[in-house]
Amino acid sequence: MAIEGRNETHSRRIRLGMVGGGNDAFIGGVHRIAARIDDKYELVAGALSSTPEKARASGEALGLPRIYEDFKEMAIREARRKDGIEAVSIVTPNHVHYAAAREFLKRGIHVICDKPLTSTLADAKKLVKAAEESDALFILTHNYTGYPMIRQARAMIANGEIGRIRVVQVEYPQDWLSEEQDFKQAEWRTDPSRSGAGGSTGDIGTHAFNLACFTTGLEVESLAADIQAFVPGRKVDDNAHVLLRFAGGARGMLWCSQVAPGNENSLRLRIYGEKGGLEWSQEDPNYLWYTPLGEPKRLITRNGAGAGDAAARMSRTPGGHPEGYLEGFANIYSEAAEAILAAREGRKPGKEVIYPTVQDGLAGVRFIDACVRSSARNAAWVKLD
Amino acid sequence: MAIEGRNETHSRRIRLGMVGGGNDAFIGGVHRIAARIDDKYELVAGALSSTPEKARASGEALGLPRIYEDFKEMAIREARRKDGIEAVSIVTPNHVHYAAAREFLKRGIHVICDKPLTSTLADAKKLVKAAEESDALFILTHNYTGYPMIRQARAMIANGEIGRIRVVQVEYPQDWLSEEQDFKQAEWRTDPSRSGAGGSTGDIGTHAFNLACFTTGLEVESLAADIQAFVPGRKVDDNAHVLLRFAGGARGMLWCSQVAPGNENSLRLRIYGEKGGLEWSQEDPNYLWYTPLGEPKRLITRNGAGAGDAAARMSRTPGGHPEGYLEGFANIYSEAAEAILAAREGRKPGKEVIYPTVQDGLAGVRFIDACVRSSARNAAWVKLD
Amino acid sequence: MAIEGRNETHSRRIRLGMVGGGNDAFIGGVHRIAARIDDKYELVAGALSSTPEKARASGEALGLPRIYEDFKEMAIREARRKDGIEAVSIVTPNHVHYAAAREFLKRGIHVICDKPLTSTLADAKKLVKAAEESDALFILTHNYTGYPMIRQARAMIANGEIGRIRVVQVEYPQDWLSEEQDFKQAEWRTDPSRSGAGGSTGDIGTHAFNLACFTTGLEVESLAADIQAFVPGRKVDDNAHVLLRFAGGARGMLWCSQVAPGNENSLRLRIYGEKGGLEWSQEDPNYLWYTPLGEPKRLITRNGAGAGDAAARMSRTPGGHPEGYLEGFANIYSEAAEAILAAREGRKPGKEVIYPTVQDGLAGVRFIDACVRSSARNAAWVKLD
Amino acid sequence: MAIEGRNETHSRRIRLGMVGGGNDAFIGGVHRIAARIDDKYELVAGALSSTPEKARASGEALGLPRIYEDFKEMAIREARRKDGIEAVSIVTPNHVHYAAAREFLKRGIHVICDKPLTSTLADAKKLVKAAEESDALFILTHNYTGYPMIRQARAMIANGEIGRIRVVQVEYPQDWLSEEQDFKQAEWRTDPSRSGAGGSTGDIGTHAFNLACFTTGLEVESLAADIQAFVPGRKVDDNAHVLLRFAGGARGMLWCSQVAPGNENSLRLRIYGEKGGLEWSQEDPNYLWYTPLGEPKRLITRNGAGAGDAAARMSRTPGGHPEGYLEGFANIYSEAAEAILAAREGRKPGKEVIYPTVQDGLAGVRFIDACVRSSARNAAWVKLD
Repeated sequence: MAIEGRNETHSRRIRLGMVGGGNDAFIGGVHRIAARIDDKYELVAGALSSTPEKARASGEALGLPRIYEDFKEMAIREARRKDGIEAVSIVTPNHVHYAAAREFLKRGIHVICDKPLTSTLADAKKLVKAAEESDALFILTHNYTGYPMIRQARAMIANGEIGRIRVVQVEYPQDWLSEEQDFKQAEWRTDPSRSGAGGSTGDIGTHAFNLACFTTGLEVESLAADIQAFVPGRKVDDNAHVLLRFAGGARGMLWCSQVAPGNENSLRLRIYGEKGGLEWSQEDPNYLWYTPLGEPKRLITRNGAGAGDAAARMSRTPGGHPEGYLEGFANIYSEAAEAILAAREGRKPGKEVIYPTVQDGLAGVRFIDACVRSSARNAAWVKLD
Repeated sequence: MAIEGRNETHSRRIRLGMVGGGNDAFIGGVHRIAARIDDKYELVAGALSSTPEKARASGEALGLPRIYEDFKEMAIREARRKDGIEAVSIVTPNHVHYAAAREFLKRGIHVICDKPLTSTLADAKKLVKAAEESDALFILTHNYTGYPMIRQARAMIANGEIGRIRVVQVEYPQDWLSEEQDFKQAEWRTDPSRSGAGGSTGDIGTHAFNLACFTTGLEVESLAADIQAFVPGRKVDDNAHVLLRFAGGARGMLWCSQVAPGNENSLRLRIYGEKGGLEWSQEDPNYLWYTPLGEPKRLITRNGAGAGDAAARMSRTPGGHPEGYLEGFANIYSEAAEAILAAREGRKPGKEVIYPTVQDGLAGVRFIDACVRSSARNAAWVKLD
Repeated sequence: MAIEGRNETHSRRIRLGMVGGGNDAFIGGVHRIAARIDDKYELVAGALSSTPEKARASGEALGLPRIYEDFKEMAIREARRKDGIEAVSIVTPNHVHYAAAREFLKRGIHVICDKPLTSTLADAKKLVKAAEESDALFILTHNYTGYPMIRQARAMIANGEIGRIRVVQVEYPQDWLSEEQDFKQAEWRTDPSRSGAGGSTGDIGTHAFNLACFTTGLEVESLAADIQAFVPGRKVDDNAHVLLRFAGGARGMLWCSQVAPGNENSLRLRIYGEKGGLEWSQEDPNYLWYTPLGEPKRLITRNGAGAGDAAARMSRTPGGHPEGYLEGFANIYSEAAEAILAAREGRKPGKEVIYPTVQDGLAGVRFIDACVRSSARNAAWVKLD
Repeated sequence: MAIEGRNETHSRRIRLGMVGGGNDAFIGGVHRIAARIDDKYELVAGALSSTPEKARASGEALGLPRIYEDFKEMAIREARRKDGIEAVSIVTPNHVHYAAAREFLKRGIHVICDKPLTSTLADAKKLVKAAEESDALFILTHNYTGYPMIRQARAMIANGEIGRIRVVQVEYPQDWLSEEQDFKQAEWRTDPSRSGAGGSTGDIGTHAFNLACFTTGLEVESLAADIQAFVPGRKVDDNAHVLLRFAGGARGMLWCSQVAPGNENSLRLRIYGEKGGLEWSQEDPNYLWYTPLGEPKRLITRNGAGAGDAAARMSRTPGGHPEGYLEGFANIYSEAAEAILAAREGRKPGKEVIYPTVQDGLAGVRFIDACVRSSARNAAWVKLD
């Protein structure tokens, strides 16, 4: 029941910078809490906005030691300092990810980047190249892969507990864009020049897609997508219905929506194999239903009876003491920290350390691209490439 | 809180016959209970099996007054009797529906028939014709439309409470055919010569399809289907992923499966409109989630606060006293009884009396046919006709 | 998956009479449906109201062959007929139970009686005597003991699956009397001259008490009760908090309430032993949580994986096809029918046939009496006798 | 949807020390995470164990700047430093709380103390006096009062939304002591010399008691308790059944247990008033059921539709992004920070700032004491004093 050890055996904290995440951002604050929870990072520098005054004001509000008005300047100057940042969090709108990440990667600074990877497939491929050419690590915050019960599900599948997979049902409905919105979060997410060609497919569909692949260990070969923009005037999709074909024969459906009233953030994953099934819902993340064929359903709880090491590694508290979104996000940061600390010491991190990579990010952008291409061809099957 | 009135104001009971439903059948017994619950029928004759000895033994076991070895003989003889049956329940495997129904329809005996309507589209069209040419009524037991909360949902949608519909998610997973089976229920349902071209699409997909249309009042114009037979050697689909396009612009997904471990009979319907959503699950049928946009979710209970007349008409007990599958099935029988009694008296039943018709049955067979055609063309869009 | 057999192997139907249950009654209609579902009874006579005109009108509305204006007259006349009733259902307000039951018992007519047994402890004791002196059977409709998953729980406990019992939590909150009510159902239930000294304790507390004892097989030795009448002017309790001490050392709490908004009919039972626990809720009756210590919780479903013979005997449909309150009630009628048919044939019913007896009824009235006595002594412990 | 502002407008962080919480403790790590989440504290000193070597090793493992082997020494030395700690977290076993808190309070250092307040009523009274005589603040970490939906419930009740309260049902079952245990967490909690006279009543019953009072705003006047030690050899209660009488006429039941298999940490609160009810469960803390009498149940979500300012103040993320136990705990730390920062600046904190006080702690110890006294008198009613 101890929560010590993994979280608090202190190496020197990792010096962290941040690009984006200024005053009125949502996800920047989430990244900062995630970085704090397990006490492995120290935020020491930031270029928190593309507007210089706002960058400065936001940095001062956070009490940042070093405030920059421009991410490139930050990359250059921090790289020169002895006590410069070792890693940077990139939490800007999507279209800035590539340009920002490149500057840090080429100076050997590890990058922790929000999803989707980029706003275009071309950028995504360039970013993969940039990451491959760099000694620095690239971590993509597909944060839902940090949930303990997702790790539990992944381990059970890898262990053959539900047998060969036949069917994957993944969905991610929300309702916050059911009507036209003009606040900042909605605005850039519905502007293709900043979010990319995908609306709901990019913002949340990529999470659903990533989670299905991460948990099952399967690759999607092709998809057929019927995407819609239900709200009049909207330039990107706000609902998408997608058929999936996985390598090896499994089939799936993916639904993402921002116009489904009553759904706040209802990412849900169901996987059925020859011998059993697994069901998980993000809004109740401490539970995993395991349904072995011909036996009663079992409700496995995070760090409770039936949960294994993969979930325990990602837990801070005993079962019954719910952990949530921020802890799941923190798990990605802590996995990244394991890898960064290993890199600092010139060693490999343990095999148990897992985080989404630039390749996962490329797969996500390919997913968006494929959805848009398929839908333009009346939901014809297209390959992901 | 009274349960009297609709259920027990006695006209003379309707004399009922039955075709199929012998000793080891499942659905025949369900029909008999459904016919008994509200005390509007009296089962007086039967041709309960295509095997004469079994027809006789089954009839005797039930204490039937008149036992026939052949449905045609039953139709002929009963039609001649003054006290002959007024209605017949047809509960055979699918491929017999048309031939049996025809015999009774042409003799003016009302038909209550199990779904899907027929095993082929050609038969379905002939049966529509037979029904249209008959004075007798044709009632299809898409029993799930008899659930009170489905009536409630339908009334709310008709009343505009969730606004113009955008998205329909309907699914019907089961797990009982996850492995090869050889018992009777499984056997004929997986034999295309008896069940028709559809496996899961025919047996349960038609229910899901019907329920989506019944509740929303929308028609499906076209679909794209990716169907599978996962269990080796199976000749019909046991899983299907279907994209739907409704007249008027709504879009949907339909999933049916017989290979999803942990799902017993998990028919589930979710409908999202511009102003709100509705969610219902067959396994917990006394609840309906109503999710008005921007307000807390509300849980409407059958005959409880928030439920209206459409649900109350279909209820026998106060809220909190759960009714289930048999009561929902009985509601179809009681609606049929209203119509049959009206016909007996030469009047029209009230507008509130609703039951699935031969046209609904045709739509279901078209759904199966479209799924098979679309899948054969790699999930291309096909019209339902 | 067959539903035949137990329900429909026809012996001649049992001829049934009914006392009470006229037009505007609630429970009479429930009893009639319960008697019909498995087709083992035929309702042929009734004295449906204490008001002669209403008795006649109600009987005619139901199409009863023989209508009486008085239950004593019915007992006398039916006893003399060759084709007289073999059993009678007594569904009057509580204060009439004893007088009515006595008339039929002493003429050898089996009695199926609603709960609580009587409105006074003196009457209860006399009724026990009357039942003991009669050759006829006495069945009390503590209908919740007819739920399949309650039978499942009882069998698991008897089989030692949760070990020696330590703690029993049972509750039965409703909300329908949260405000003053003047309709018939509320009226007699809040009038001590008709309902007896207990309000919520008598109407629903006895169900909770009975269910706890039935399922665990334990006897309550003493209790301490704090009862309240929250609604101004109410003459009987509408809420009760009761501590229980069982023979053998288990302890429990019982809460019943008619003033708990949001609770329709929320009877709920939780039992914890040395090795595991069981949890069941009447409003979702097809599920039973089984929580073996140190293992994941398991959700056993009626007639599904993990459910045993005791539940299957009480089921008509496969798992996932929900059965409810009426089916549970029908199970009591069908158990009674088994016993009555055995009596008709001069044999003993099988050991698996279980129904609440007059002794269970006496225990319930003792429970009410003890609650009232304890509460009058400031919740002092009192024995049940 | 912003998460900035309250969490990150930086005043200088509060310098924090810690007493207890060494290597193998559970709750110390929870306190440290809670203090970090909103970035308002900096842990700079600690006396983490009563064993000097362990105190040192634990402090070094955490990288603490100043490590002490003794809390008194820490209090003396820190009080003398200009940059000494401003607040101390006391997370030792219960019997040390008083002695430790006294040392810091008398030197003007704010105390954040785990519950229950002390292991004896005498100590509790002395601690109240010490707190009253000090200028420093005393915050008790009844962490469950920090959950947003508990704040929501409290605000709704204060606002009259469920009317005058009639019934309170609170329970806190766990299962981790169902068998004899010998690990550290279990050991001191079942040793009356360290935990105090209460076992389950002290460890978790106080939480349940506190939550009922906090949310309703009502005081418990008297109680009747039946407490048990089910596990052979156990010296303190592991299960308790308690009847409650509140000032003003409301009644309640409280159940706490450590021997209820299947319950991990199932604190649950249900409150019923004349006009409606509220239901909340700690294991699913982002939801609050609101059941207005005569209307459908509503599910209010943290920071979602229907939730008000009191919940929003305690939230970091939008609805649908679950927050949990650690965030709730962090809310107490952040409320404490508001008060400490106000004290630093010589002003009063806003009225919205709420945290459990030393008086709440005294009430909790009185609750334990009353349970033990009542149970010794066969569950007689005793006053809380």
